[in-house]
Amino acid sequence: MLRNDQLAEWDRENFFHASTHLAQHARGETPTRIITTGSGVYIEDRDGTRLLDAFAGLYCVNAGYGQSEITDAIADQARELAYYHAYAGHGTEASVTLAKMVIERAPANMSKVYFGLSGSDANETNIKLVWYYNNILNRPQKKKIISRWRGYHGSGLMTGSLTGLDLFHKKFDLPLSHVLHTQAPYYYHRADLDMDEAAFTAHCAAELEALIAREGADTIAAFIGEPVLGTGGIVPPPAGYWDAIQAVLRKHDILLIVDEVVTGFGRLGTPFGSDYYGLEPDLMTIAKGLTSAYAPLSGSIVSDKMWKVLEQGTDENGAFGHGWTYSAHPIGAAAGVANLNLIDKLGLVANAEKMGAYLLAALQDALGTHPHVGDIRGAGLLCAVEFVEDRDARAFFDPARKINVQVVAQMLQNGIIARAMPQGDIVGFAPPFCLTQSEADKIVAATKDAVQAVLG
Amino acid sequence: MLRNDQLAEWDRENFFHASTHLAQHARGETPTRIITTGSGVYIEDRDGTRLLDAFAGLYCVNAGYGQSEITDAIADQARELAYYHAYAGHGTEASVTLAKMVIERAPANMSKVYFGLSGSDANETNIKLVWYYNNILNRPQKKKIISRWRGYHGSGLMTGSLTGLDLFHKKFDLPLSHVLHTQAPYYYHRADLDMDEAAFTAHCAAELEALIAREGADTIAAFIGEPVLGTGGIVPPPAGYWDAIQAVLRKHDILLIVDEVVTGFGRLGTPFGSDYYGLEPDLMTIAKGLTSAYAPLSGSIVSDKMWKVLEQGTDENGAFGHGWTYSAHPIGAAAGVANLNLIDKLGLVANAEKMGAYLLAALQDALGTHPHVGDIRGAGLLCAVEFVEDRDARAFFDPARKINVQVVAQMLQNGIIARAMPQGDIVGFAPPFCLTQSEADKIVAATKDAVQAVLG
Ligand SMILES: Cc1ncc(COP(=O)(O)O)c(C=O)c1O
Ligand SMILES: Cc1ncc(COP(=O)(O)O)c(C=O)c1O
Repeated sequence: MLRNDQLAEWDRENFFHASTHLAQHARGETPTRIITTGSGVYIEDRDGTRLLDAFAGLYCVNAGYGQSEITDAIADQARELAYYHAYAGHGTEASVTLAKMVIERAPANMSKVYFGLSGSDANETNIKLVWYYNNILNRPQKKKIISRWRGYHGSGLMTGSLTGLDLFHKKFDLPLSHVLHTQAPYYYHRADLDMDEAAFTAHCAAELEALIAREGADTIAAFIGEPVLGTGGIVPPPAGYWDAIQAVLRKHDILLIVDEVVTGFGRLGTPFGSDYYGLEPDLMTIAKGLTSAYAPLSGSIVSDKMWKVLEQGTDENGAFGHGWTYSAHPIGAAAGVANLNLIDKLGLVANAEKMGAYLLAALQDALGTHPHVGDIRGAGLLCAVEFVEDRDARAFFDPARKINVQVVAQMLQNGIIARAMPQGDIVGFAPPFCLTQSEADKIVAATKDAVQAVLG
Repeated sequence: MLRNDQLAEWDRENFFHASTHLAQHARGETPTRIITTGSGVYIEDRDGTRLLDAFAGLYCVNAGYGQSEITDAIADQARELAYYHAYAGHGTEASVTLAKMVIERAPANMSKVYFGLSGSDANETNIKLVWYYNNILNRPQKKKIISRWRGYHGSGLMTGSLTGLDLFHKKFDLPLSHVLHTQAPYYYHRADLDMDEAAFTAHCAAELEALIAREGADTIAAFIGEPVLGTGGIVPPPAGYWDAIQAVLRKHDILLIVDEVVTGFGRLGTPFGSDYYGLEPDLMTIAKGLTSAYAPLSGSIVSDKMWKVLEQGTDENGAFGHGWTYSAHPIGAAAGVANLNLIDKLGLVANAEKMGAYLLAALQDALGTHPHVGDIRGAGLLCAVEFVEDRDARAFFDPARKINVQVVAQMLQNGIIARAMPQGDIVGFAPPFCLTQSEADKIVAATKDAVQAVLG
């Protein structure tokens, strides 16, 4: 049996981790944590430490860890057929079934689903689809994409450009041209503290209108947004936001890409975030909750309106030149079918709604009057606490103090994983949907203790 | 039990397939083929048809289908821990072990591996790494990437730009700026039939030199190439090609990205294509053979030289802003460890070398004098037959006749899957490494019959 120090050495010498300080890690200044198993909302590491994962991995293990219906489906599929490609009309029983299940669950105007691996590659596919669509419609100039500051849509070159966070742009020469950013619908961070929510929503819509006017509507192809800002701070939009934005987009014939990677398949207590906010997407991005991360699988869901043009495109130009070797990978598809069935069977979406409301209220009870807690917000089973130096003046802490990183580190010592969001003093929560009330209580208690330890 | 016509209907109504004529498929003009199981070099579909897969999926099922060592590893990993992320120093025993195994197998100057999902996303990562590298070295202008016509590096926006094939550019507004293409090292397609191989190699190097001179070496960051052109036609380079190209790159301080997605882990009978051709990569792209496609996993292998600069970058700028949710996915990592161990245990790389030589010689015996066979070529267990209208004049068929598509369709009727390569009348072969002599004989016989049926 391998020793832990041996593994840590191999790790430092060979493994390039995602989103890591590479030099510190290679020097052994940051720990290697080897995860071994999980069950429900808990994971366990190789030192025997058991942790309550209040962020469900990277808000993706929606069904919870160790669900044997899903792991059995993976094992069975692996034994029957681990791989064949999905090019040129090939599929497996699982991939065809899953396509049907996805379209059944999606809003009524959605037509077909293309399966990829990651949320990033699904957004990459979406941009290809948007450009192709406007080429087929003979609008070669209509190609720019509008995203929001603080949006998160992946970390590739195009998808990292869509992402509106410094960490993903700096030193990578991003955003690429073609990508424009508009106002984040982040009411708590509004510049003018005197604005009420309705006025701030009108301001967001006006900013979008102004950007479109500056660039020319005939140059703007699509707008992409998460129903609730996720990695950018876990921020539900101000009241009326999506109605106002959709009205602007319709007026200028701009496609709406709804990135449901976090919100898809129940995170907000509804099938999709689009249902929660009354969105009518032209394209939807799905990943995470599709398989609860048991196997990599993502998807681009295409509306009837766009699909018709894609068909016309292939009649005019032949086969569609797009594909990943692992599109609709059999193991991902089998995991997806089992996961969606299990979520239905256990009523996990209803539980996400119920426990989300409970957790948010409990956090508000516990921390709502703390002088350094500025905002507690959420939708469904997705919520956040934001810290401030001065609550009344809404004065933020110096980012160098990394208050949220300190809070999260303190919580980890008490056995709870929460996430320090990358831009702002925000701690995020997105537990598995199988969360119970007593587990929610543990999260709240640990948060309260940690805030006390760090901020008094 | 689901009926096949039912599945086909679900498929047409819901499933957006990769690389497919969307309109024809939706209208039911192209078949749905549901694959159910596989063993060795054979797959089976839901109609009970058994097919010898002489292209190993999409040249990826290197270990062959139904290998229980790999499927057991997947099943075990799924049960123990299907998912946890690999951000910020997290890993699993499998992912850390696999990182070590990859670096042990890679050329001596390689240092660390970043795990992604697809070959495309690994190349996307590579371009991010190259740009970051030159930003840290304060060479902000040195950013352009040179690829070759007929190269294949993926089908995203940047990776589809690197790809040098019409199908992946047309109607998608690709290539993006920053990407330049140079001469394909395709001796059989040389413009000047009087050139010998050495002269053609010199011509390729001179074309590269001229491109660099036109653009300015201080604007060119990297050159990307597959050791053997794959999807662009399965074309081993002319003698001396890689030595000549590497000399040019070194002279101008241009990084070399070797895309080993097809050639990595034994396809050429050597650990990597880099070993076969004496390449010294700064970055390597791996996917397919890493897991034999049993689960999605790719990698970017970074050299010592680049890694040092990445470390410096994070010391100066903090954590590296790059990551996919499913980076180093536990199931992919477990599949990778089991796959590489199995390939070693069964001696499959040596078998690939032996059977590759056998298959190529047998194709040459069977078809070498056919008046419509212009070229039969290969390296390791990767080979191709190219058809021509007139052999002596090297006159190609009108592409509209789709000769290679006809040949492949005919072979399929006789139970053998080969691949009609997308640009040129080329049929490609890349069977699983476990191929036996009698299976190779079947491939050759079916090819000969099909060529006779289509071309006389
Ligand atoms: C809203 C959203 N879109 C896209 C992505 C990218 O997904 P992936 O990490 O699988 O590439 C993420 C990942 O967190 C996300 O939250
Ligand atoms: C050489 C090469 N690079 C990259 C890729 C892209 O890999 P994927 O299809 O997994 O994105 C391929 C796929 O065939 C390939 O052959």
